Amino acid sequence: MDALELCRQGLEEVASDRRRGASQLARRCLAIIVDYARAYPAKDSHALAEAVQKLSLDLRDARPSMAALRNLLDNFLASLPQVRGQPIELARTAVIRSANEVAEQSRQAVIDASRHTAALIDEGRTVITHSLSSTLLAAFRSLVGRRVRAVITESCPLREGLVLAQELSRLGIDTEYITDAQIGLFAAHADLALVGADTLLRDGSAVNKAGTYLLALAAYDAGIPFYVCCESFKFSDLSAGEVTLEQMATSELAAPQLPHVHLRNVYFDITPARLITAVVTEHGVLASSANRSPS
Amino acid sequence: MDALELCRQGLEEVASDRRRGASQLARRCLAIIVDYARAYPAKDSHALAEAVQKLSLDLRDARPSMAALRNLLDNFLASLPQVRGQPIELARTAVIRSANEVAEQSRQAVIDASRHTAALIDEGRTVITHSLSSTLLAAFRSLVGRRVRAVITESCPLREGLVLAQELSRLGIDTEYITDAQIGLFAAHADLALVGADTLLRDGSAVNKAGTYLLALAAYDAGIPFYVCCESFKFSDLSAGEVTLEQMATSELAAPQLPHVHLRNVYFDITPARLITAVVTEHGVLASSANRSPS
Repeated sequence: MDALELCRQGLEEVASDRRRGASQLARRCLAIIVDYARAYPAKDSHALAEAVQKLSLDLRDARPSMAALRNLLDNFLASLPQVRGQPIELARTAVIRSANEVAEQSRQAVIDASRHTAALIDEGRTVITHSLSSTLLAAFRSLVGRRVRAVITESCPLREGLVLAQELSRLGIDTEYITDAQIGLFAAHADLALVGADTLLRDGSAVNKAGTYLLALAAYDAGIPFYVCCESFKFSDLSAGEVTLEQMATSELAAPQLPHVHLRNVYFDITPARLITAVVTEHGVLASSANRSPS
Repeated sequence: MDALELCRQGLEEVASDRRRGASQLARRCLAIIVDYARAYPAKDSHALAEAVQKLSLDLRDARPSMAALRNLLDNFLASLPQVRGQPIELARTAVIRSANEVAEQSRQAVIDASRHTAALIDEGRTVITHSLSSTLLAAFRSLVGRRVRAVITESCPLREGLVLAQELSRLGIDTEYITDAQIGLFAAHADLALVGADTLLRDGSAVNKAGTYLLALAAYDAGIPFYVCCESFKFSDLSAGEVTLEQMATSELAAPQLPHVHLRNVYFDITPARLITAVVTEHGVLASSANRSPS
């Protein structure tokens, strides 16, 4: 595939992806950049840096709700000035190494965050979650054999819950699979609520799959702690009022078009810090003054 | 169809019905009793009363979560002693008249409750609801042309929201159709929340389609009032700890069977009185001391 086609396809893939979490998608962006840097027919390092920079900025803008994309791509972009002026093939190698390094930092942060997350789940406890968090899934992997139980949600419209159900089934973790509407019923039977996040905002609120806010409300009402697990790459300078909540294709709702009826498919909601017991990152469990006091 | 077959089919229909609300289903029970009383080959009024009583009790027990069934059937059962001793055809007519009268009382109560419900919705207001309430739908019918808007939910697993969407579309009411997971997002944009109930418990809490409790939590957090609309036939002597929440077939979730994964399909949840601003019945808007203060 030529560089132009790689670029076009990569942007389209990232813009339309509904399956990957923010961290995975951010690393996918870096992998697209690596492929592009390999294929780009640059005559010198300046041309290569220009082209790679443009693609990075376009990828960053393709998913405005996801701070991880912005942060990882900004980290990568910060390395670009150093390649300018180098011989072209050295520059190409440096660009590729830099993108791979940033992706590796992201992977390591997820591993460390999942380790701190697992430490919150005592033997025999029941965890309720919503949507699909790779950090939480990694935590479950490390808890096999410790009689931990899970309550997981369908997560409509695309039902990420089915993917999580398969993974937990494979791990042999005793799991209850519920519709999103049953979140309130089952929060009362769980010991703690744990979710991932697409973005953690400056005011401590969390952007995550729509329904997360409902789980936080139910956890608060049930008196169980509500933790958000995410690497610090997902931290954003924006506050709740400034963030763009992406709306996806309403065809995902598989409902008929009717006069006067507007289908809505807002993918993310915002859970305010006052409902979050603490945020778990690669650095450990962080509670700010804005967070709710632990139950 | 012979009486035995009517009885068998009627019980099966009522036990498995997932489409009708509690009031409609209670009236359907009375209609089944009318058909059965017409067809039953009784030699005297005692035999007729016995047979009709047995069917009524079986219908009542077929749906333990629904107080309306119990109350309407108990009202009907209270009329049965009077028919004993009458000539058989007079007795048959009396049974049929009594069942029809109780059904008519129920219909009238729904109409009156919907009138009081409509009075809560000022011109231009946005109402958010969950599942499908015939009382609320009747209220919407009376509000056509008053620029009232609706936010309605898919209501998984059986998507009663699609039925409501069709009705509101036909009425020309501007409607937003959302997934259940978006309830939190959209409660913040509504002026009031209104739901029906399957049963109103002694402690003022409401049994309704799973997800209702989540809407109540979101309404409370958004600072909008949350009303439960139901006729007093739905009042129960039970309190929240005593009620049986029906679980339906997990096949409705259309999820694969996986080792260690248990599909759960609890149909109802309980919204505590502290989250309910007031209950709207045929007698008007009733707030008890257990209810949350109006926003």
